[in-house]
Amino acid sequence: MGELQELVTHERIRRLKYRYMRAIDTHDLAIFREVFCEDARVWFGNGTYSNTGIENILGFFTGLLTPGFVTSHIAVHPEIDITGEDTASAIWRVEDTCHFIAPLPEVVAFPLTGGEVLQGAGHYYDEYVRLDGAWKIKSSGYVRIYEHIQHPGGREAELIVDPNLGVRR
Amino acid sequence: MGELQELVTHERIRRLKYRYMRAIDTHDLAIFREVFCEDARVWFGNGTYSNTGIENILGFFTGLLTPGFVTSHIAVHPEIDITGEDTASAIWRVEDTCHFIAPLPEVVAFPLTGGEVLQGAGHYYDEYVRLDGAWKIKSSGYVRIYEHIQHPGGREAELIVDPNLGVRR
Amino acid sequence: MGELQELVTHERIRRLKYRYMRAIDTHDLAIFREVFCEDARVWFGNGTYSNTGIENILGFFTGLLTPGFVTSHIAVHPEIDITGEDTASAIWRVEDTCHFIAPLPEVVAFPLTGGEVLQGAGHYYDEYVRLDGAWKIKSSGYVRIYEHIQHPGGREAELIVDPNLGVRR
Repeated sequence: MGELQELVTHERIRRLKYRYMRAIDTHDLAIFREVFCEDARVWFGNGTYSNTGIENILGFFTGLLTPGFVTSHIAVHPEIDITGEDTASAIWRVEDTCHFIAPLPEVVAFPLTGGEVLQGAGHYYDEYVRLDGAWKIKSSGYVRIYEHIQHPGGREAELIVDPNLGVRR
Repeated sequence: MGELQELVTHERIRRLKYRYMRAIDTHDLAIFREVFCEDARVWFGNGTYSNTGIENILGFFTGLLTPGFVTSHIAVHPEIDITGEDTASAIWRVEDTCHFIAPLPEVVAFPLTGGEVLQGAGHYYDEYVRLDGAWKIKSSGYVRIYEHIQHPGGREAELIVDPNLGVRR
Repeated sequence: MGELQELVTHERIRRLKYRYMRAIDTHDLAIFREVFCEDARVWFGNGTYSNTGIENILGFFTGLLTPGFVTSHIAVHPEIDITGEDTASAIWRVEDTCHFIAPLPEVVAFPLTGGEVLQGAGHYYDEYVRLDGAWKIKSSGYVRIYEHIQHPGGREAELIVDPNLGVRR
């Protein structure tokens, strides 16, 4: 692949990611069907929330993206590698702020009473595939640097740190 | 427009935006006259603060960017569309933290005593135009996902959420 | 340099920066030796922490990136200028959140008891050089817009603002 085609590919993959991120924070479920391939996999929270196949992913997001989940996720620092004619991978920095206005018992593994504010930092490790000329997310998940959780009612905040900080290569 | 010219145009529009964002947070009023076209329009806070024409925009920013307004605004996730030979549009994610050290009665519509900290998330919807070879902002404004306002003196924080979350397409 | 080579150079410099930022937040000391040139200079905190030469820089980061320093740094808004065949400079917006879990008496100039949370905003002013075909950081430092420091034990937060806000050109 020549230099121009590499740059064009980077731009298309960045744009795919930005469209996906917009879908999360605006609760725009229609976009999810466009950005993932059929057999895509997502793994969030270091793999606690893992789903394979577009219907399972849509089911997960339909349960999550309710009025009680008000969020800002940003993906920056794209380190994109083109790994084949129609495949690519990327590392991204993610920062997210999640206002849990209501508990989300069906999709969130830890106890939430509602009123929590989570501020997280981490890295996405994504895989992409080109199908009929269009780049799609093949797999996407993140490893946390830390999660900071503020609880309602004056309880002290928690900071959960990656136990592998400085160890992972 | 060929692929290379598209990429060059994207780069120029991103750079225009970054220069504008730097002007906001460093209170560098001279930059505003360079980045907007004469008949530009800005609409902030879902349109609460709307100004048309470079002189009105400069007047608005001159009133806003005072020592009592200390801020960090970041624009990420550019989704740029070239819409004509000399026109383009873009959606950007914005995150901002605003420290209102002093009240700003002339420019801010809601009551501020000073001491508030606003953390906002949203999307810019921008229009650009190329004049004599240089890209300029034709219109810029944002729609909020949410605003979180911390008040001084221990008053409980407010979270104001986009009522159209999950509805807007 | 033609337009394509300019875009390729921008991409390489952005990627160099993203790799460096990842090293900071993951405490990956091996990366630092790859991203800096031998006689590089870093100057942080408006120049309070200044180090020249790769060994001094590594020594500084080795002291800083301990389990008591848990952070998220993001660099956005790259304004890159190619200044010669093998030299470039850039302004970047930086936002960082630093959780000081433990005091860092050897590397941090201001008194820390442990438990502080610093949220900073500023601009990096970087210089890059190309050596044997690979872009390296020649110098990197930042000027603050503000630093917001939350202390443990209910002490009131501090906001330290750039005294030159609106003055610097």
